[in-house]
Amino acid sequence: MKLLEERILKDGKIFPGNVLKVDSFLNHLIDVDLLNKMGEEIYRLFKDCGVTKILTIEASGIAIAILTAQFFNCSVLFAKKSKTSNLSADVYITSVKSYTHNATYRVQVAKSYLKKEDKVLIIDDFLANGEAMRGLIDLIEQAGATLVGCVAAVEKGFQKGGDDLRAKGVRVESLAIVDSMEDGKIVFRKQ
Amino acid sequence: MKLLEERILKDGKIFPGNVLKVDSFLNHLIDVDLLNKMGEEIYRLFKDCGVTKILTIEASGIAIAILTAQFFNCSVLFAKKSKTSNLSADVYITSVKSYTHNATYRVQVAKSYLKKEDKVLIIDDFLANGEAMRGLIDLIEQAGATLVGCVAAVEKGFQKGGDDLRAKGVRVESLAIVDSMEDGKIVFRKQ
Repeated sequence: MKLLEERILKDGKIFPGNVLKVDSFLNHLIDVDLLNKMGEEIYRLFKDCGVTKILTIEASGIAIAILTAQFFNCSVLFAKKSKTSNLSADVYITSVKSYTHNATYRVQVAKSYLKKEDKVLIIDDFLANGEAMRGLIDLIEQAGATLVGCVAAVEKGFQKGGDDLRAKGVRVESLAIVDSMEDGKIVFRKQ
Repeated sequence: MKLLEERILKDGKIFPGNVLKVDSFLNHLIDVDLLNKMGEEIYRLFKDCGVTKILTIEASGIAIAILTAQFFNCSVLFAKKSKTSNLSADVYITSVKSYTHNATYRVQVAKSYLKKEDKVLIIDDFLANGEAMRGLIDLIEQAGATLVGCVAAVEKGFQKGGDDLRAKGVRVESLAIVDSMEDGKIVFRKQ
């Protein structure tokens, strides 16, 4: 998505360790107008897929999921992170490793809000190793629901999460794929 | 707000210890259409106040903040919770006690995203003891910005957070104020 790529080039900041900070418009301060246009683009990509629910994970995925849901006219379910082992019969639980925070979270959704008949689109802000996406897919499988596809605002194409999922047959659409960011120069994958 | 009160009566669940769960439409599964109407009502209340930024706190406040920001045509800044003491010159930090999780969080925003000239509206999903609101107000004061007011989707009127802030001269508007929920019966404050 050209508008997003331009914004990343303009306002994204590169830090050592291949860290790309986009917190001036995507995941701390939020440019609602830009995210709205991203939601419109996601709708264009998946509008014929019968999406009934958007699934995301707290906290940074919520904004883009909510704005996208307006186009699909569907509800948003956000999975909750917990470090405690809150075993309950009422929730689907998976575990997600965060490389950023060097921690493993239990991630859960209430069973009553994810149904077998749901056609679910996963949306998150970032896709790198794919840990969060795999966790959310696991929750959908536990519920017996249908995975329509996965969307990331920004994918780090030089990490393997997105391409691994594609190799498994999952439809993964990222609005911008950063294939390299060496020497402070961001190169996007042609889509 | 009548629509929200009706929804709380229909789908809210009361648990021991004065816990009101509204996670089927407000803070786990999200009814985007309802939250959009809540955003419209918040805009009606504050449209003449020159709001330049909406401040909320992760994670449950983000959805309603985002949908409200569309009406104000402004950006959203969400404060981040951290249990680690990440001292940095680049952030304003405050501490917020969570009674729900029996923990104290460090809550922070990047200094560069909260400016002296900002007129800030705080939005959160719940207002009970007022700890989160007080923390967010502290961040605004550290930045030297102007607090326009505080909005909660649901206020527990029998706890004192909201009324304490009002007594200090803060404009607090809650879309639904639950004044009691004894014996499973929810009573709203007349507004």
